[in-house]
Order: sequence, then C-alpha cells, then structure tokens
Amino acid sequence: IPVGQRAEPALSKESLIKRAGCLVTDSTQTFLSQTTYALIESLTDYTKAVHTLVSLYKQYASLMNKINSSEESAIWQVIIGARVQMKKLQDEYLKYEANWMRAVSISEMAAEAAYLAGADQASVTVRNHIQLVQTQINETRELALKAEALLASVQSEEIKKALTEDKNTPPGEGSPESSMSDKEMPEAYLRED
Amino acid sequence: IPVGQRAEPALSKESLIKRAGCLVTDSTQTFLSQTTYALIESLTDYTKAVHTLVSLYKQYASLMNKINSSEESAIWQVIIGARVQMKKLQDEYLKYEANWMRAVSISEMAAEAAYLAGADQASVTVRNHIQLVQTQINETRELALKAEALLASVQSEEIKKALTEDKNTPPGEGSPESSMSDKEMPEAYLRED
Repeated sequence: IPVGQRAEPALSKESLIKRAGCLVTDSTQTFLSQTTYALIESLTDYTKAVHTLVSLYKQYASLMNKINSSEESAIWQVIIGARVQMKKLQDEYLKYEANWMRAVSISEMAAEAAYLAGADQASVTVRNHIQLVQTQINETRELALKAEALLASVQSEEIKKALTEDKNTPPGEGSPESSMSDKEMPEAYLRED
Repeated sequence: IPVGQRAEPALSKESLIKRAGCLVTDSTQTFLSQTTYALIESLTDYTKAVHTLVSLYKQYASLMNKINSSEESAIWQVIIGARVQMKKLQDEYLKYEANWMRAVSISEMAAEAAYLAGADQASVTVRNHIQLVQTQINETRELALKAEALLASVQSEEIKKALTEDKNTPPGEGSPESSMSDKEMPEAYLRED
C-alpha cells in the first residue's frame, strides 16, 4: 500500500500548516497584484491630469496679452476645473497607495510566515513579486513627480508674470490670479517672488 | 441590459481590491485555524508528558527506601527517558507556537487591510476568529503551566530528599540524582536547599 503511505504524511500538522501558509502567500499575491494595478492606473491618471493643467497654464501664458478679461476669465474657469480634477485624482491615488502599502506589508509578513512554515519556495516567490511591484510603482511615481515639478515651474512663472502685471494695472481690475486663495497656491510658489 | 450594468461595477478597481482583500482574510483564517490546531495538539502532548514525569517522580519517591540501587537505577533510566520525551515535545510546541504567533500577526494585518479595502464584514470576522483562538490557546497554555508548576514542586521535593540522603551515604555511591547535570536541573530547584 505505498500510495496510502505516501498520502499519510500530507495530513501531518506540519504539512497542513505548510499548505495553509501557501494559501496565504497565494492570496496576498493576488491582493498585491490588484492594489499595484489600481495604484499604477490611478497614479497615471493623476499624472495625465497634472500634464493637462501644465498645458492649460502654458496656453494661458501664450494668450495672456492677446485676449480680453472675459476671455481670460473663461480660460481661468477651465484651469480651475482642471485643478479640481487633478485634486480628485490625487485623493484617489493616495487611497490606492494606502491599500498598496498595506498589501506590501502583508505580503512581506506572508513571506516570513511561509518560510517559517517550511514553504520556502512560496516565500521566495512572494519576495520576488514584492520587488517587482516596488520597481513598477517607483517608475510610475517618478513620472508623477516629474509632472509635479513641471507644474510647479509653470505656476511660478505664472505668478511672476501676474505680479509684474499687477503693478501695471489698478487694484480690483487685476488678473484673475488674485482670485486664487493662498490655500490653493502652495507656499513654495509664494516664496518664489 | 440591466444585468450587464450590474456586472460592470464588480470589475472596478475598488471591487477587485475588496475581493482580493477577502481572499487574504479567507486564507489567513485557514492558516490561523491550522496553526491553532497544531499548537493545541502539541501543547496538550507536552502537558501529558509533564504529567507522566510527575507520576514517575511520585512513584520513585514512594519506592525510594524499598528498592536496591540497581532497581533505583532502572527507574531513573525511565525518568530520564521521560524527560527527553518531554523536552522533545516542548521543542515541538515551541515551533508551532512561533507559527501560531505569526498567523495571529498576519491575521491582524489582514483584518486591517480588508477594512481599508472596504471589506468590513471580512475584517470583523477575522478579528472575532483571532479572539476565539487566543482564548483557546490561553486555556491550553494554562493547563501546561499547571503541569509545569506541579513538576517543579515534585522535583524540589525530590532534591530535598536526595540531599538529606546524600549526607547519610558515602560519596560516589550516592543516589542517581547526582548524575543529573546542572543543565538538566533548572536553577530555581537548585536554589531550593
């Protein structure tokens, strides 16, 4: 009865724990994949929104002296809309980032637990998976950071121009930038002048 | 096409993460169950071994003045064998205890991740499961601690008797307790005299 003998050890406490440990690594890998996918997608959407805002600022800058105040106001409405959209996408990616970081932690823990339970191969697989997604996320994050840096430089240009313009126009009639509250404008940009 | 409309949101990033979070809680629950089962079984085996040793010590004490040195030596061989067995089972339960503690940590993390992923019910279920197994393990541990306390008291009695006996017998011919190394005898018992 060699078949029965071979099946017996599969029911030992040790092998049951090992199997359960593998189940955990399998599920944490699915969780890690889904959260990585969601974070990459949402971070990419956010990056696109930042670039949209950059190009709107640039268009506005190129038109600034060629349009009347109502046209300017219309462009600013579009810019404000784009800022709101960017903020919304930022909140979304931050939510997915929290999920992703949790998934990384739980995967690390699953790798340790699997190793302790004797499931060495499953442990190694999870560790490789973690490294892979960390690389993917870092690359995606870099693109977002570049877009943010571009936006910051365009906005600071904008503010400089607006301040120069403000000196030449009477107060109250000023450019629509003055309608932006301090809250909307990061401190770093205000310090630029 | 209301069926298609209902199926659509199930494929959103959010619902995929939620599902993956539930997979993680499911698997950590299996892992927690298996490690709990293994720990309870191994801890119970250890407790039995401690009680076996206690009863051997008691038998030895009751026979001590009625047997010759070769009979005494034979009993001591049995006691030493029982001590080795107890130590083996202790090592085993300590191994399963490490697995179990890891399973508790990973379950706690899975509960948090599930909650963050919007799988509130799964999160609550895991937390309840953790509490349940912690109660079970505490009860089993208490039985082991009681057995250990009993063994300690029996052993200290034994040592006292042996020391009294040693004064009455010439050195070298002493009771077999003198063959026990310091390593085998916990410090606490040595301090008893």
